[in-house]
Amino acid sequence: MEEQELAKIEHLGMQRVVIVGGGFGGLELAKALRDTDVQVVLVDKQNYHTFQPLMYQVATAGLEAADIVSPFRKILEGQENLSFRMAEVMCVNTETQVVETSIGLIPYDFLVLATGATTNYFGDEQMARHAIAIKSVEDAVELRNTVLSNFEKALQIGDNEQLNSLLDFVIVGGGPTGVEIAGALSELRKHVFPKDYREIDFRQMDIHLVQSGDVLLKGMSAEASQKALEYLQKFGVDVLLERRVKSYDGYTVTLNTGETLITRTLIWAAGVAGAPIEGIRPESMRKGGRYQVDNYNRVAGYTNVFAIGDIAAMTTPDFPEGHPMVAQPAIQQGRLLAENIGRLLASQDLQPFHYDDKGAMATIGRNHAVADVKLLGKEWKTQGFVAWVMWVFVHLIALVGFRNRLAVFANWTWDYFTQNTGARFIMGKRREPIVPAGEEAHRVVS
Amino acid sequence: MEEQELAKIEHLGMQRVVIVGGGFGGLELAKALRDTDVQVVLVDKQNYHTFQPLMYQVATAGLEAADIVSPFRKILEGQENLSFRMAEVMCVNTETQVVETSIGLIPYDFLVLATGATTNYFGDEQMARHAIAIKSVEDAVELRNTVLSNFEKALQIGDNEQLNSLLDFVIVGGGPTGVEIAGALSELRKHVFPKDYREIDFRQMDIHLVQSGDVLLKGMSAEASQKALEYLQKFGVDVLLERRVKSYDGYTVTLNTGETLITRTLIWAAGVAGAPIEGIRPESMRKGGRYQVDNYNRVAGYTNVFAIGDIAAMTTPDFPEGHPMVAQPAIQQGRLLAENIGRLLASQDLQPFHYDDKGAMATIGRNHAVADVKLLGKEWKTQGFVAWVMWVFVHLIALVGFRNRLAVFANWTWDYFTQNTGARFIMGKRREPIVPAGEEAHRVVS
Repeated sequence: MEEQELAKIEHLGMQRVVIVGGGFGGLELAKALRDTDVQVVLVDKQNYHTFQPLMYQVATAGLEAADIVSPFRKILEGQENLSFRMAEVMCVNTETQVVETSIGLIPYDFLVLATGATTNYFGDEQMARHAIAIKSVEDAVELRNTVLSNFEKALQIGDNEQLNSLLDFVIVGGGPTGVEIAGALSELRKHVFPKDYREIDFRQMDIHLVQSGDVLLKGMSAEASQKALEYLQKFGVDVLLERRVKSYDGYTVTLNTGETLITRTLIWAAGVAGAPIEGIRPESMRKGGRYQVDNYNRVAGYTNVFAIGDIAAMTTPDFPEGHPMVAQPAIQQGRLLAENIGRLLASQDLQPFHYDDKGAMATIGRNHAVADVKLLGKEWKTQGFVAWVMWVFVHLIALVGFRNRLAVFANWTWDYFTQNTGARFIMGKRREPIVPAGEEAHRVVS
Repeated sequence: MEEQELAKIEHLGMQRVVIVGGGFGGLELAKALRDTDVQVVLVDKQNYHTFQPLMYQVATAGLEAADIVSPFRKILEGQENLSFRMAEVMCVNTETQVVETSIGLIPYDFLVLATGATTNYFGDEQMARHAIAIKSVEDAVELRNTVLSNFEKALQIGDNEQLNSLLDFVIVGGGPTGVEIAGALSELRKHVFPKDYREIDFRQMDIHLVQSGDVLLKGMSAEASQKALEYLQKFGVDVLLERRVKSYDGYTVTLNTGETLITRTLIWAAGVAGAPIEGIRPESMRKGGRYQVDNYNRVAGYTNVFAIGDIAAMTTPDFPEGHPMVAQPAIQQGRLLAENIGRLLASQDLQPFHYDDKGAMATIGRNHAVADVKLLGKEWKTQGFVAWVMWVFVHLIALVGFRNRLAVFANWTWDYFTQNTGARFIMGKRREPIVPAGEEAHRVVS
């Protein structure tokens, strides 16, 4: 590590917990350490927390970016033992106990990795270049802008294949994100786009959902999987089960069956992986880019380095590959780790983590959702309107910040009654359709 | 003009009115032509209308960008005789009666220029490079991001001059925009920033407002000007009257008096000018970049080319330089022009424009505004709380789209009671502080 200055952070004369990443796990931990006798330094490359479960609605113009983000400094206001720093983390030195960041070195007594997950293209570089993935709210905004400006362009196209390349969508991955995006696009196709683009015949707009397995929403109940498939088919989504995408050049999608689809918008929702951090011993990393942790979220081989949430793999008999990479394990691990750090300081025995699985839900469209809820030791399976109402309330309650909650509630109510989602503006980054090499004919008016 | 294809726009077999620009004037005209027997083509480089009077609130994190924009396709939904096209206008050929755009040629029978105004740096290229102006909502977002990330950087600065360069602001221009930004920044300094950035001593943050004339809000009543000055001074803004900025290199501001100020954020609110359109005869352009129009908004020298709003100078005994470059003249000219186009088609006499001046208002901060309202043939001058409540309601009512209105109302109510504006996230473009050539010492940690 080259010589670098210390980042300027006030010293509170207490042991210092440095948390890298302010997603669900890192934020919960930071908040739960409020009354513990430690100094907390939360580092994130953004100055806001993102409510990831609703990112797909930003991508499909249902919500505005501002609705699902909240500044860390606002959420953590008044927490005396906490300093937030907006910075990139370069690497960690576990010998000297410092984190090297874009604003200087940050020493720690306890280090918590809560960096989440990133998109996994399984090494396919062409796919990584051409596909769109939604890992940040900025990505979601870019997707929205791209879709809307493709439709603006489509107005100028006479050629039928060209037109379809702009109107059609291929979504790869039949998990919650893929299902929710496919559903949201089908609703836009039915209620919004035909009014906005009168000149386009939206029977030409195809939405393909490609899923390698034989069911959607793998991990949920058979009833949920079945109903999700039925709802999507009812909404006119072409669900392609047991199919894989072999390649995509920005225009032609080739499936493992030899079938081809034409689209300028392939949305990749097929895989995530933890992102390794330089300086952490590679032997602690498992397949899928997650760090092996013990029952106390300690990274294998360290006593004062922890990992929580998506980046951590706590392997148990129930979860041989680690917990699902969703919000609840991250939140629960963050909360327990705060208590365990208190116990460490008091030289008490640590408490092991037990996952309280509350179930899962996914929404396909207005009045259509599926839910497997674990409550009072029982599993409740429900689909349709009741599941949808549950989904709405669970997400509203979980949103951080009263102002966001109010705005989202107002927007959803408005959209429900008018079927006229409002965030259809093109503002900020967007992708221009890519012209594959040597395929001049594919060019569209820009 | 080089050969170019026609843009693909359905032909309705009626005379065609092409409107360039969807600001207040162009949008009003488009809407008012709903029941007229013409085809309307509205061209704008954005797909949304911007409510410009509230842009300064986006720049100061009071509102979100989404609150003050509304997609044209949504506003104009169901208007059968209208086509919207998102495109850049390159030039106009008044011989062949076509507009050359980024999507192809658009023929017209009547052309209406409603392109508004752009920032006027009076030829100072260094100023144009370093100053920040707010002419679009994307500019406003960029200013917000820049201010917030400068404060994040300020946390790492030990040197006092460096720190002040990041914390201090210079606003040039004492019109409504300058006054409103200065007021909004002083409120952030008092209520929001000290909570967000505990380690910074905000007594070090200076807000300078530089105004060339001897009063603020020139054009409003003496009472309004005086009260605006008092309010700003009460809020701790350093108002520098009868001073001009001679130069700015991104760090040092030099005034005509020789005084210097240090800041990385100079906000230019000192001048606007119409933007000329290639292909319109230069002899029709007046000083200030506005096209000379007659009482019917016809551009001098043409019979079927019109200009409305900021880009038009209709010189009258009351307004020897043309009407003020604000929303009301644009809206009223748009409305009358729609009627006059109907009269033209019916070979009736055109009606001349008479400006119905409703007065002016500006808000300095919570509970503090000034208003000169013309109502029932009388002028009502009021300042303080009553003026502020009027300002709030006038702006809420004028906002296009119920959803925006609801969101803005909710956000303002929340901010009023909590004094905790919510949109403090850094998302999208921002400027990095500029290092003036040969001034290494000015560099800040980035």
